[in-house]
Amino acid sequence: MSRKRVTIATIADEAGVSVPTVSKVINGRPEVAPETRHKVEALLHKHGYQRRVSQESMPTGLVDLVFTELESPWAMEIIRGAEIAAREASASVVISVVHTHAGPGRDWLERLAARRTDGVVIVASKLSPHVQAQLTARSLPFVVVDPEGDPPPVAVSVGATNWHGGLAATRHLLELGHTRIGMISGPPDMLCSQARIDGYRAALEAAGLTVDPDLIRRGTFLVDSGHDNGHAMLDLPDPPTAIFAGSDLQAFGVLEAARQRGLRIPQDLSVVGFDDLPLSRSAWPPLTTVRQPLEEMAALATRTVLGMGHGDTPESRRVELATELVVRESTAPPRS
Amino acid sequence: MSRKRVTIATIADEAGVSVPTVSKVINGRPEVAPETRHKVEALLHKHGYQRRVSQESMPTGLVDLVFTELESPWAMEIIRGAEIAAREASASVVISVVHTHAGPGRDWLERLAARRTDGVVIVASKLSPHVQAQLTARSLPFVVVDPEGDPPPVAVSVGATNWHGGLAATRHLLELGHTRIGMISGPPDMLCSQARIDGYRAALEAAGLTVDPDLIRRGTFLVDSGHDNGHAMLDLPDPPTAIFAGSDLQAFGVLEAARQRGLRIPQDLSVVGFDDLPLSRSAWPPLTTVRQPLEEMAALATRTVLGMGHGDTPESRRVELATELVVRESTAPPRS
Repeated sequence: MSRKRVTIATIADEAGVSVPTVSKVINGRPEVAPETRHKVEALLHKHGYQRRVSQESMPTGLVDLVFTELESPWAMEIIRGAEIAAREASASVVISVVHTHAGPGRDWLERLAARRTDGVVIVASKLSPHVQAQLTARSLPFVVVDPEGDPPPVAVSVGATNWHGGLAATRHLLELGHTRIGMISGPPDMLCSQARIDGYRAALEAAGLTVDPDLIRRGTFLVDSGHDNGHAMLDLPDPPTAIFAGSDLQAFGVLEAARQRGLRIPQDLSVVGFDDLPLSRSAWPPLTTVRQPLEEMAALATRTVLGMGHGDTPESRRVELATELVVRESTAPPRS
Repeated sequence: MSRKRVTIATIADEAGVSVPTVSKVINGRPEVAPETRHKVEALLHKHGYQRRVSQESMPTGLVDLVFTELESPWAMEIIRGAEIAAREASASVVISVVHTHAGPGRDWLERLAARRTDGVVIVASKLSPHVQAQLTARSLPFVVVDPEGDPPPVAVSVGATNWHGGLAATRHLLELGHTRIGMISGPPDMLCSQARIDGYRAALEAAGLTVDPDLIRRGTFLVDSGHDNGHAMLDLPDPPTAIFAGSDLQAFGVLEAARQRGLRIPQDLSVVGFDDLPLSRSAWPPLTTVRQPLEEMAALATRTVLGMGHGDTPESRRVELATELVVRESTAPPRS
C-alpha cells in the first residue's frame, strides 16, 4: 500500500489557508497569526510533512550545535569534538545557547530560518515535538547528544553508557570496603542522570546491600550542587564514608564541603566523579572518576548529522559510547 | 589631493592577468597558480584594495570566532561572551580552530570563501599580512582579541590591562613580605605574556629589589608548563617563597608540583594565578589570581565587529579592559 507524499498544497487546503502562509510557517517567519501557525504546525506534525530537497540546494558548510547553557567545561569537550568532525568535512560549527531547559524554541527557529544550515546537533536539551516537526518540515537533519527526558521517538541520539558507569564507580567503592555510599546525581528529568543512579542501585543490590533513600540526592551538575548536597549528606546521623557524584564539577563541590568540615580525602571520605574533565587529573587530590568520551560523542553526532544531510541513514537510532572508570587518588578503603 | 579608488581592473592590468583571475584570488578560490596568486595578493596589499560593498548584500547573521586551539577552559569564557553579544544582535557564532600558532591561513580563507560572514573575531593568534589583506579585500571587518606579537597596525584589537595585572599580583606578594618571587609566563612572542612580566619587574624595582633572571621562566599557558617550570624553580639553590603564574592553569601545575615536594600552600609557598577561571575558586586552596574579564572582552570584540559591518568606526583601535586582583587562600606571608 503506497502512501501519497503530502504536499504543501494539501496542508494549506486542510488548514483553510493559502500556500504562502504554510510556507511562512515552515520557514519560521514571524508574520503569521498565532492560531493559524498552531493549526498549520499541528497538520505538518500529523502528516510528517517534509520539504522536498531541491536538487540545486548546496551545502552551507555549517553545522549548528545547540546548548542549554555554556557554564561547564563539559561544553568545551563537546565543542572540540564537533569542530574536529566538522573540519574533516570542510564545515564549521555554529554555536547557539538557548538558556532554557525547555530546549530550543521559536526564537531559535526564527534565527535559523534567516540563514541555512546543513544539520543540527542538540546537546543535553529537551526537544519539543513542535521544534522536531519544524526541523523535519524543513528537511533539516538533527541528532541529539545525551538527551534529557525520553529521547524523541523520531530522533537519532548519541550518549554514553551511563548505567555501566554508575555500576563501575559503585563497585569500585564496594571493593574498597565501603558500605555507606552516597550518590549525588543531576536533574531527575535527565535520562543520563537516572541511568547513573540505577547503575549505583544495581551494584549495591548485587552486593546484598539495601539502598538507603537518604543517601541519594539530586541537583544540577554544577559545583554548588555538589557542595550543598555533600554537606547535607555529611550532616546525616550516619553519614556516608564515600560519595559518588554525577559529574566532576559536583565532585569538586563535595571536596570543598569535605575540606570545610576538616575531613581528609581519601582517608576520611572517598569521592568519585563522572566525566573526566581535563582538570580532574590536576585537582587535589587527583580525582577518581568515570570517563565519558564527550569529544568522541560530539564528533560522532556531527559526522552522523552531516551524513544524513547527504542522504545516509544512520546505522542505529541510538548509539552509546563506552564509559570507563579512571582510578586516581580520591578513593581509598574506609577507616576501620 | 584626492586619491582614486583602486579597482579590480587596475589590479588585473598591473599584474598582467584577467579580471576574473583577480576575482578568484580575492574570493580565496584555489584554482589560481601560486606565483600568480602571490603577485595579485601583493598588489591587493600594496593598494589596500577593498571590494565595494554591494547595496543588496544582506547580513548573514554569522560572526566567525577563530581560535588557535580549544585546550583551555579560557576558550569557554570567550565563546560565552561572543555568543551573548551575537545573540543580542540576532546573530550566531561560528567557531573555527586553526591549530597553528601562525594564525589563520589559506585553508581557513578557502573555507570562509565558500560561505559568507558578517565579521571575524580572531582570538590570541597571529594575523599574517596576507590574511589581513584578504579580509580587507573582501570588505570583511575583523577584530583581534589579545593579540600575539605586535598588534597588526590596521587591526582593531581588544585586550586586558596585563601590565597592571602583573604589577598588582607582585605588589600583593611584596606586601605579604615575600622578596624571592618567581614568575612563570607564557610564550615570549605573546604581547600579553610580556606585559605581565614587565608589570612584575616594575613592582620589584619599585620595591628596590633586583630582578633575578633565574626567577623568570616561560612556557605555554597550560597545566604541564606550570608543573615543569614550578619544579625547575623550586630546584634552585635559593628557591622562591612565592610564584606568580601567567595563567590559572599554570598555577594549578605549580600547586601540583608543590604537593609532589610535600610543600604546603600557602604556608610553604604562595601561588598567584592569572585569569580567574570559574574553577579557580573551587581549587584547593582557592586560588588568589588576577581576574581578566574574558567574557566582556569577547563580547566587546563581537559588538565592535558587528558595528563595523554596519559602517560604524570603532571609537579606538585598541581597548584594554581592567584586570583585578582577587585574593583567596593560596597566598600568605612567608615563613619567618
